[in-house]
Parts: sequence; C-alpha cells; structure tokens
Amino acid sequence: MKESLGANTLVYPTPVWVIGTYNDDGSANAMTAAWGGICCSKPPCLAVSLREATLSHGNIKRNGAFTVHIGTEKLIAETDYFGISTGRVTDKLADTGLKAEKSDMVNAPLLNEFPLILECRLKQIVEIGLHTQFIGEIMDVKADKDILGEKDLPDVELLRPLVFSPVLRHYHGIGELVGQAFNIGKKFKNKD
Amino acid sequence: MKESLGANTLVYPTPVWVIGTYNDDGSANAMTAAWGGICCSKPPCLAVSLREATLSHGNIKRNGAFTVHIGTEKLIAETDYFGISTGRVTDKLADTGLKAEKSDMVNAPLLNEFPLILECRLKQIVEIGLHTQFIGEIMDVKADKDILGEKDLPDVELLRPLVFSPVLRHYHGIGELVGQAFNIGKKFKNKD
Repeated sequence: MKESLGANTLVYPTPVWVIGTYNDDGSANAMTAAWGGICCSKPPCLAVSLREATLSHGNIKRNGAFTVHIGTEKLIAETDYFGISTGRVTDKLADTGLKAEKSDMVNAPLLNEFPLILECRLKQIVEIGLHTQFIGEIMDVKADKDILGEKDLPDVELLRPLVFSPVLRHYHGIGELVGQAFNIGKKFKNKD
Repeated sequence: MKESLGANTLVYPTPVWVIGTYNDDGSANAMTAAWGGICCSKPPCLAVSLREATLSHGNIKRNGAFTVHIGTEKLIAETDYFGISTGRVTDKLADTGLKAEKSDMVNAPLLNEFPLILECRLKQIVEIGLHTQFIGEIMDVKADKDILGEKDLPDVELLRPLVFSPVLRHYHGIGELVGQAFNIGKKFKNKD
C-alpha cells in the first residue's frame, strides 16, 4: 500500500540549468532553472519553464533565443547563486566573477566557464499556469574538450552535472554507471 | 576554446520514466521515455514527449491520462525493456511479470512495483516535430514508505532513480549529496 503525497512536483531526477539571456540594455543575465528537459529529437529541442515575473522570461520573448549551461559540481555555488538572486537588483555575473561572450549561433550569451552549453533559438511558447514553457531548438552544443569521452561525446562522469531534488532542494552528483540502455532489458525478450 | 558538437540532444541529466497507459482493449501498456521534465509548479505539471508511432501516444490522447513511474536501479532491466519492446507485438507487462492496478485518480494503470508514481491528467498537447509533447497535471504522487526520508518526502538516495545520458545511452545512478540548493550560493550575496 502506497502513501499519497498529494499533487506535487516530486519528479526525479531534474536538471539544473543556467539560462543565459540578454537584458534590454544588452548586458548578460543568468538564471537557474530546474523545470525543463528534452522535448523533441527532430528538430532537437529542449523545454524550460520560467515564471513571468523573471527577467529571463521577458528576455527570451524579446530576443527569441537563450543558452543553457549545464550546472556542475565545480560551479555549484555560482549555479545556485543564479537561482537565488535577481538581475533586477544586481549584476549576477559581476557578483560571481564569471564573464559572458556572445554566442556566434544565437542572440544570447555564453558563460564559457561552464563546460557544456546548448545554444537555442526560441521555437514555441506554451502558457501552462504559473510557468511559461519556452521550447528552444538546439542549434549547437559547445563543450570543453576535457569533458569529452567515448566517441568524443560528453562523459557525465567528467562533466559531473548537478541533479536536483525538488521540494527538499538537494543537489546530488552523478553516481556510477549502472547499465547500458537499449540493452540491459533484452533479457526479457524472446522468452518463449 | 570549446568544441562544437552540432545540433544534438546532449542534455544532462535526463530522467528515465515509465509511462503507463491503457490500450483500447483495456489492457495496460508501459513505455519508457527520457524526453521529459517538470514544466509548471501551479498547477503542478510535467511534460513527456513521445513519437506518434508509439502505442502510448494514441493511448494518452484517447484516455486523457497517464502515469509516470520513476525508473530505478532495482528495476533497471524492466525499465529498459519497456523502452526497447512494443506493446503492438508483445504484452510487455506479462514478459516482465509486473502487474498493473487501476489508479483511483486517473484512467491509467499503476505498476506498484515501482516505488514512486505520478498520476497525471492530460492538460495540453504540443506538436513539436518528430515528438508530441504531452503536458499532464499531476493529480497525486504515490510512494512506497521505504523510500521516504526527511519530512516524509522521497529521498533520492533511497529511491535510487536512474539518470540517462542521451546518445551514449548510459544509465547512471544517483551520486552523493553535494549541496543544499537556495543556500550554497549565498556566499556571493552582499559582497560589498
């Protein structure tokens, strides 16, 4: 018999993404979000949901673009700070000492201290409730060489992305490799 | 200088969810998806993207409901199997020996061997490209008592959810607690 925990966003794992946008004065802003995920393979798209009250919400609408920086253990304090401060009252990048460069793909900043960055062009806006969902087409992925492993693809054990637990608000690291997808379940095939 | 990896769904972490639906003959189906995430806090909603070719796609449209079972290390083989087989040619639940019960909240099945299940009512459908995104309002969350920790909320170290790496198709476990969100970034506040 299971316990009922009520209607709540108790989903695991959730990502920790730093969303990069340009403010209307051309300065760069960074905001951390955990409400997101991939939403399409072709074209490759991701979705991130933001409250209308945020500066980033207006920035994405105005610029039609944003960047997604994967939050990592190494940058945990910076990543967290971008989620608890607001660009309306402080220059978040100056506070942390991180620098922004212009993406050559979309009208949004790159914070190159983050080892993995996705450059997105706004494709669709979906109004849901408190949050607006921004669907971005992934135009390119930029990665530091030292997080690339097998097949020159990102290796999560090198990237060390943060994993967020909603409600309890815990950041966890990535654990060990426990299996190969599209393979470990084959034991149930052709049983007869 | 970063490497360009091209337009690809290289996002970390992604979840591993088993989507439960009813087929048109009333039998239960289960399908694994990694393209999803939370998309709104109020009302609490999650989004999952499926290809139109899947049985689950039609099932959600017809029934207006689905369940989300968090894939876990313990059920890694079953979880993977639901992603590599199709309900069109086999009874996936029978193959794995898992049983389905009817949810008392929505018109979708519960696979109670999974320790954490979200019961969702279809709220919105968003056509994106190869994938259709289904936005479900979370009506209730059901949990096994033995995965609850602090504040009677799910403890990811007990739940042990799978974490998926797209393209390389690796399942990882959850790692250690590395920080408290909305807290560890405070060191950058009020620096002056």
